[in-house]
Amino acid sequence: MLNNLFIEIDQHYDEMVNMRRYLHQYPELSFYEYKTAAFIAEHYQRLEIPYQANVGGNGVVATLTGGKPGKTIALRADFDGLPIQDEKKVEYRSKSQGVMHACGHDGHTTTLLTIAKIFKQYKEVIPGKIVFIHQHAEEVAPGGAKPMIDTGILDEVELVFGTHLWTNTPYGVVQTAPGNFMAAADKFTIKINGTGGHGGIPHQTKDPIVIGSQLIANLQQIISRKLDPLATAVLSIGTFHAGNAYNVIPDSAIIEGTVRTFDLKLQRFIISEMERIIKGTCHSYDVSYHFDYQKGYPPVVNHKEQAAWIIEAAQQVSEVKKAEMVEPSMTGEDFAYYLERKPGAFFFTGAQIEDGFIPHHHPRFDFDERAMKIAAKTLISAVYRANQ
Amino acid sequence: MLNNLFIEIDQHYDEMVNMRRYLHQYPELSFYEYKTAAFIAEHYQRLEIPYQANVGGNGVVATLTGGKPGKTIALRADFDGLPIQDEKKVEYRSKSQGVMHACGHDGHTTTLLTIAKIFKQYKEVIPGKIVFIHQHAEEVAPGGAKPMIDTGILDEVELVFGTHLWTNTPYGVVQTAPGNFMAAADKFTIKINGTGGHGGIPHQTKDPIVIGSQLIANLQQIISRKLDPLATAVLSIGTFHAGNAYNVIPDSAIIEGTVRTFDLKLQRFIISEMERIIKGTCHSYDVSYHFDYQKGYPPVVNHKEQAAWIIEAAQQVSEVKKAEMVEPSMTGEDFAYYLERKPGAFFFTGAQIEDGFIPHHHPRFDFDERAMKIAAKTLISAVYRANQ
Amino acid sequence: MLNNLFIEIDQHYDEMVNMRRYLHQYPELSFYEYKTAAFIAEHYQRLEIPYQANVGGNGVVATLTGGKPGKTIALRADFDGLPIQDEKKVEYRSKSQGVMHACGHDGHTTTLLTIAKIFKQYKEVIPGKIVFIHQHAEEVAPGGAKPMIDTGILDEVELVFGTHLWTNTPYGVVQTAPGNFMAAADKFTIKINGTGGHGGIPHQTKDPIVIGSQLIANLQQIISRKLDPLATAVLSIGTFHAGNAYNVIPDSAIIEGTVRTFDLKLQRFIISEMERIIKGTCHSYDVSYHFDYQKGYPPVVNHKEQAAWIIEAAQQVSEVKKAEMVEPSMTGEDFAYYLERKPGAFFFTGAQIEDGFIPHHHPRFDFDERAMKIAAKTLISAVYRANQ
Amino acid sequence: MLNNLFIEIDQHYDEMVNMRRYLHQYPELSFYEYKTAAFIAEHYQRLEIPYQANVGGNGVVATLTGGKPGKTIALRADFDGLPIQDEKKVEYRSKSQGVMHACGHDGHTTTLLTIAKIFKQYKEVIPGKIVFIHQHAEEVAPGGAKPMIDTGILDEVELVFGTHLWTNTPYGVVQTAPGNFMAAADKFTIKINGTGGHGGIPHQTKDPIVIGSQLIANLQQIISRKLDPLATAVLSIGTFHAGNAYNVIPDSAIIEGTVRTFDLKLQRFIISEMERIIKGTCHSYDVSYHFDYQKGYPPVVNHKEQAAWIIEAAQQVSEVKKAEMVEPSMTGEDFAYYLERKPGAFFFTGAQIEDGFIPHHHPRFDFDERAMKIAAKTLISAVYRANQ
Repeated sequence: MLNNLFIEIDQHYDEMVNMRRYLHQYPELSFYEYKTAAFIAEHYQRLEIPYQANVGGNGVVATLTGGKPGKTIALRADFDGLPIQDEKKVEYRSKSQGVMHACGHDGHTTTLLTIAKIFKQYKEVIPGKIVFIHQHAEEVAPGGAKPMIDTGILDEVELVFGTHLWTNTPYGVVQTAPGNFMAAADKFTIKINGTGGHGGIPHQTKDPIVIGSQLIANLQQIISRKLDPLATAVLSIGTFHAGNAYNVIPDSAIIEGTVRTFDLKLQRFIISEMERIIKGTCHSYDVSYHFDYQKGYPPVVNHKEQAAWIIEAAQQVSEVKKAEMVEPSMTGEDFAYYLERKPGAFFFTGAQIEDGFIPHHHPRFDFDERAMKIAAKTLISAVYRANQ
Repeated sequence: MLNNLFIEIDQHYDEMVNMRRYLHQYPELSFYEYKTAAFIAEHYQRLEIPYQANVGGNGVVATLTGGKPGKTIALRADFDGLPIQDEKKVEYRSKSQGVMHACGHDGHTTTLLTIAKIFKQYKEVIPGKIVFIHQHAEEVAPGGAKPMIDTGILDEVELVFGTHLWTNTPYGVVQTAPGNFMAAADKFTIKINGTGGHGGIPHQTKDPIVIGSQLIANLQQIISRKLDPLATAVLSIGTFHAGNAYNVIPDSAIIEGTVRTFDLKLQRFIISEMERIIKGTCHSYDVSYHFDYQKGYPPVVNHKEQAAWIIEAAQQVSEVKKAEMVEPSMTGEDFAYYLERKPGAFFFTGAQIEDGFIPHHHPRFDFDERAMKIAAKTLISAVYRANQ
Repeated sequence: MLNNLFIEIDQHYDEMVNMRRYLHQYPELSFYEYKTAAFIAEHYQRLEIPYQANVGGNGVVATLTGGKPGKTIALRADFDGLPIQDEKKVEYRSKSQGVMHACGHDGHTTTLLTIAKIFKQYKEVIPGKIVFIHQHAEEVAPGGAKPMIDTGILDEVELVFGTHLWTNTPYGVVQTAPGNFMAAADKFTIKINGTGGHGGIPHQTKDPIVIGSQLIANLQQIISRKLDPLATAVLSIGTFHAGNAYNVIPDSAIIEGTVRTFDLKLQRFIISEMERIIKGTCHSYDVSYHFDYQKGYPPVVNHKEQAAWIIEAAQQVSEVKKAEMVEPSMTGEDFAYYLERKPGAFFFTGAQIEDGFIPHHHPRFDFDERAMKIAAKTLISAVYRANQ
Repeated sequence: MLNNLFIEIDQHYDEMVNMRRYLHQYPELSFYEYKTAAFIAEHYQRLEIPYQANVGGNGVVATLTGGKPGKTIALRADFDGLPIQDEKKVEYRSKSQGVMHACGHDGHTTTLLTIAKIFKQYKEVIPGKIVFIHQHAEEVAPGGAKPMIDTGILDEVELVFGTHLWTNTPYGVVQTAPGNFMAAADKFTIKINGTGGHGGIPHQTKDPIVIGSQLIANLQQIISRKLDPLATAVLSIGTFHAGNAYNVIPDSAIIEGTVRTFDLKLQRFIISEMERIIKGTCHSYDVSYHFDYQKGYPPVVNHKEQAAWIIEAAQQVSEVKKAEMVEPSMTGEDFAYYLERKPGAFFFTGAQIEDGFIPHHHPRFDFDERAMKIAAKTLISAVYRANQ
């Protein structure tokens, strides 16, 4: 049976590529994915699978009841894009100015829609119920997972699986972990309230750009000096914005960034170190500041048994050269919320393009589209493994 | 005679305030001052003083021939605004989003238009010719002065005067200098070409924000360590922009700033130090960069005799408590170009508001409007002094 | 039998404390431990255990042949002090100006000498041969272990064990690891060749202190930005020396530090990043430099089976509340060389003083002397476990 | 008459060179110049000029009463060395380890002793009284000038002159200023109280080297951002010392430096900015500090009339190609104290070696010895000018 489904995936591959490339050209920002949600809903409409739109926002949830007895298993794919200008030269590059599918969510969506299509076709022999969760707004905390779950979509679900197409991992490799798999991902914003003025008269100002630069250098010490070398944490600045004119020292500078940890105590420690360094640095230059720290997604902690199932499931897929347990990743995912509620596992489907690695969130991000086949087959295989 | 003209200024004061406040509400960016130019042109139209619009851009030049023999003297006022959001609470605050008269050019324009009106009224007794130069685009090099001059507007001019309403100087004080008065003001842009990526995976990126911050700290050393303590120069950063998302390390960072000097050799030295520091810093982190340095206005160097006349002229004005020769200012002005061609002098008319100093280019910039009277009277007085 | 030996240790405790405190008062710097070596040699002389002095430097090796058949097992203790001024108030504080036993080697020596004394007493019932290795110069690479081993002292040894009294670990706890246990510890020296001069005339100098400070800030980025957050490495600066007079900018600055890793590839990466950052920073300020990087001890990698024996051995000791496998430590040890040659394991004997933790290498370093009993008993117990 | 004295100087030149080179080989640190003081005293003993030793410390004061009526004029020379290792290759390099005449005080002493010898010879025709002040400890505040003056040595003095051999100025040039001539020179010491520990365990320490480095970078902003670009001040770090071992993070770091200003208000401002930056930086990293700021010598402010005399006096000397009024120097001198009490002037005697400039306080400092002739002749000439 599994083999038949795998053959179907192979036969749908061209369709998958077309669908993914279409989605790739029309990315939408988190919480504004109206057209993508409509695209997904139409798909289920056409398949005549019952679905619900606007679940907890722009989410779409469809449920297929198989003809055989079995568990109720949710499969999840996210569908939002990122505020990055697509710099690829390919024809299917983003048509939206400044917005881009730079994290593969177009591929996730395609994968899940294709599974739904094939499962519908083989409905009579599919065990249990499959809940297709198309989640909006994964990229921006507080994210779409929580409000979707809050509507009750997991209430009857017994198990939950999901995958991320992953360009850090070579094509043909599937990776998961038996516990900590992805980090808690927090957001912070620091506003430095200097005093602007004429660029030629600096001593009458309190220069927020120089102060902000100093602060960024100072914050490096949290990782380089204050962290146990065996501990794992990241503090990255994502944006620095100050000033409108080359000859005007601006009034303020705004710095945004992210902190990643797997551990509540370490998270607290980093926050308190940041507070002290920001306070001290701003005191040094006699300026005030606003520091806002928003705890984001909790860490993605896989359930041990289900993570083992993923390895076994992947080993059924002929394209998978290696299925392995790996060290956790510093990236975050609101898949964390599903795993707080239900047993399950999240995994990476290796999608690195052979002739050159492009990191996620990069303006030239792209992935090996064949990885969508592995993703789809491993998820299908996981459904079967769970029903053994 | 001078006294009669002074009394006229006093009687026109309410009109001046109204005009200035009107202009204050409708600031326009440098090179885009179409409506302001039209406003000025209409004024001369109404006064029936011959004028020419679109001089070297949006410039307006009017010429009034007096009834008495005398010199041909140019008086100049600039009329562009700045890309700053007006944060004042007053009713006459800017109505243009993100644009503001934060440097007093509304006051300069009002002053010159009022002098023209009164001179027209007293035309028969005015000596020589007065050339009213309303210059666009003073704030952004290459500025409006040069293209206006290139059209020949100074060809028959014998002397040129101008003033800046100046909030660094108390109301009632007039300041000039017998030589160096304002600095050469250059613009630079540094682009750091890092490698972007996921905020949680910094080691796969080359982080342009941290590198840019380090660079800004490093550039401080040019002033603090490499400059003769007796030399005079400024290096200020006006803008730092990088990143669109808190969790994405961006590909690049763009830094803009200004260098101010009075001395060609020092200017060259600072450029070469900047080049070396930028190159070394970028080498340290294995990134490339683009460094663009645009020499801006030359220094404003007053002619000694005419500067002395300004002091004498100001001493005729009863509101002037002090007229003094001062140290040069680090600010720049394209009035420099007029003084490269013709004898003359530029001066500051103190315009500080009594209960609190707001620096030029500040989002709450405002000036003591009574200073417009002193500016107008001193310019009129200078015309008489020059014709003695 | 083991129990009898444990009781002997208890009965010798006062003697151990006296011996340790004596050694504590007379610390000697690495490679200059002449008196300590003589003290050790005399001990074996008195015990009539055959020994050899001046082994590979100041090392002392004694061999006791037990009356029972068994393996040849080496036990190792190091005996050098550190260039730190003892700031403790206790009577037994160091009597040597600027030299101190700030790492517990006095306790290691006492422990091993006491084991030797008791084993001698019970010689007839001791299995196999015990090789007592008293090693000089553990603190300063290239260290004493390698030259001692090169003389052949391990040739007939079958197993090797050693311990470190460890104030990071509470009293009553024994810790080891089944593989990576302590880091590779390298030394680097950076000399910045500036140009000195009068403190009041900085622009005629190239200020090596400001440049060195900038460099130290820049080097932080290797850990904070260039290291995989899941990787483990340390880069610490231990010394910064520049200048002799407050009003003279010196010619040069000298910076020394250490890099710690478990992984050859990471070690190479850090060296190349350091090289680039030093080169770029020095280029920025037009100075030359000398960068010397000396690879130190390799990582201490325990043998899995022997590490497990240590846990079992420690569990025989009633004072041990917990014997556990732990994450590796970033500190280094030339015990690494013994484990490159022979199976064995190194372990930490918790020695934290109850009312306050003092880190190793701290001017007020001290340890809970009762830990010497646990160290001795665990080593004795390990000998028995190895002979099972 | 003046010409005769000039010829005598020429004839004594070889003797001057010998004396200077002898003194150069035996420099002594400030306040420890016992042998140099004895050397000076013996000279006056031999000349049979009445003198007093141990004046306010190691100072020596001799008084010669001329045979003609005239003013009582003090001439001053300092005689202490610096804690710098002489790196010159010449035979007359310093024989004292780590001590050096790196500021020309050997030349000053030689010049004054030679003037005394010649004046003694021509005693009958010398006008007035000449007070030869040989001052100890100029390099280290609180210096020797004040205690010497406090003994009353200036009580009967009407005028005071002094010179500094100056390698920043070409040979043949004499420079002074009609007011501000040399800066107020202050000393500061900052001790950062971190928490030391093992170099491999940074998170258990508070690393004073990294914090000190950050602080030095932060302090640059006082000059680069907080100072009016037209103001004149220097803040230089002269020493940074921390740590004894490459693998031990030290407990503390000590930073010393100097601040130079001409202006009490600016001095106060810089102190308060330093205080805030030190406090803020130390707060950032949760460490305490000790900040000690010692105001040093006041600025050297020449008296206008006497400064003019120096120019005139120098113009009498045939070797002087140029005698000029110049901008002030950022270096300090306790000659300031003499000018606070009595009219007079201090001047620079150009002493740059033709084929290469070496700054003062540099390990290879040397000067053009012919400048001693110019110094001597200008001082003699000044005595005559003052008596006109």
